[in-house]
Amino acid sequence: MDVTIVTVSRPETTATVTRGAARLLTALGYAPLAEVTLPNGRRADLMALGPKGDIFIVEVKSGIEDFRVDLKWPEYRPYCDAFAFAVAPEFPREILPDEPGLIVADGFGGAILREAPVEPLAGARRKALTLAFARLAALRAAGGAATEL
Amino acid sequence: MDVTIVTVSRPETTATVTRGAARLLTALGYAPLAEVTLPNGRRADLMALGPKGDIFIVEVKSGIEDFRVDLKWPEYRPYCDAFAFAVAPEFPREILPDEPGLIVADGFGGAILREAPVEPLAGARRKALTLAFARLAALRAAGGAATEL
Repeated sequence: MDVTIVTVSRPETTATVTRGAARLLTALGYAPLAEVTLPNGRRADLMALGPKGDIFIVEVKSGIEDFRVDLKWPEYRPYCDAFAFAVAPEFPREILPDEPGLIVADGFGGAILREAPVEPLAGARRKALTLAFARLAALRAAGGAATEL
Repeated sequence: MDVTIVTVSRPETTATVTRGAARLLTALGYAPLAEVTLPNGRRADLMALGPKGDIFIVEVKSGIEDFRVDLKWPEYRPYCDAFAFAVAPEFPREILPDEPGLIVADGFGGAILREAPVEPLAGARRKALTLAFARLAALRAAGGAATEL
C-alpha cells in the first residue's frame, strides 16, 4: 500500500485559508478584497464590506511562526469595525489571543468559531476607507495590480 | 493597389470607445467600472469614482441609431454627480444634446470636448451608491460576473 504524505507549504496554506475565508465572507453577504495594503503600511489578507457598510478585516495565519512573528494585529483595528484571524483546521488555536474573532477555513469554505467583536469606526474614517476600497476594487476589476488602499 | 475598407461593427465601436474613455477617466484620477446596472434598471457603460468620492457616469454611443433609440439619458442623472456621452471621432456630434459632458475616444484614449456639468448628489444617496459600487467592484475583482449595483 502506498501512503502519500502531503506537506502543505506555508504560502500554499495561506492561499488555501484565504480562499476558504473569502468564500465564507461572501456567503455571509460580504464583498471581500484580498491583499489590501492599509494606510499604515500593514497588509490585510482580506478586507470585506458588508451590506450595510461595515468593514471586516481577516488576517490569515499559516503557522505558529507566522503568528509569533506578527504580534502587530492590533494595528488592523483602526481600519475596520471587526477583526478576525483565519487559520487552517490543524492550526494550534490556543496560541491565538482571545480578543479577535476566529475563523477556521480550508480551501472550500470556513466557519466562524468566535464572533469578531464590533468596535464601530468613526463616520469620517469609514467614509474614507469605503471610498478607497471602492477605488482599489474597481482598479483591480479592470485588471490592475494595485494593492494600496 | 489594394484598398482595404474597414467597417467597424457597432459592438466593436462600443468596446473601443468604452476602453478609450476608461483610460481617459483613469488618467484623470477616476476609478472606472464598466457595465454597471443602476437601481432603476438602466445600464451605465462606465461608472467612475473620483479621488474625493464624486461619481461620474459615461454613456457610450456607437452610432446615430443607438442615440436616437436612447433618449433616456436623463435617467442616469439621479445616480451621478456628472454625466457625459462618449463617442468615436467620426460620430456626428451635432445630434447630441448640449447639456451633458462630451468625450471623444478611440481605443487608446480620449479627450473631454465639453466638461460635464456637476449637480452634486445628496449625501445619503452618494453614500449608498459608493457602498454598492465598492461591493460590486470587489465581487468583479474576485472574478465574479455581477453587474447590478
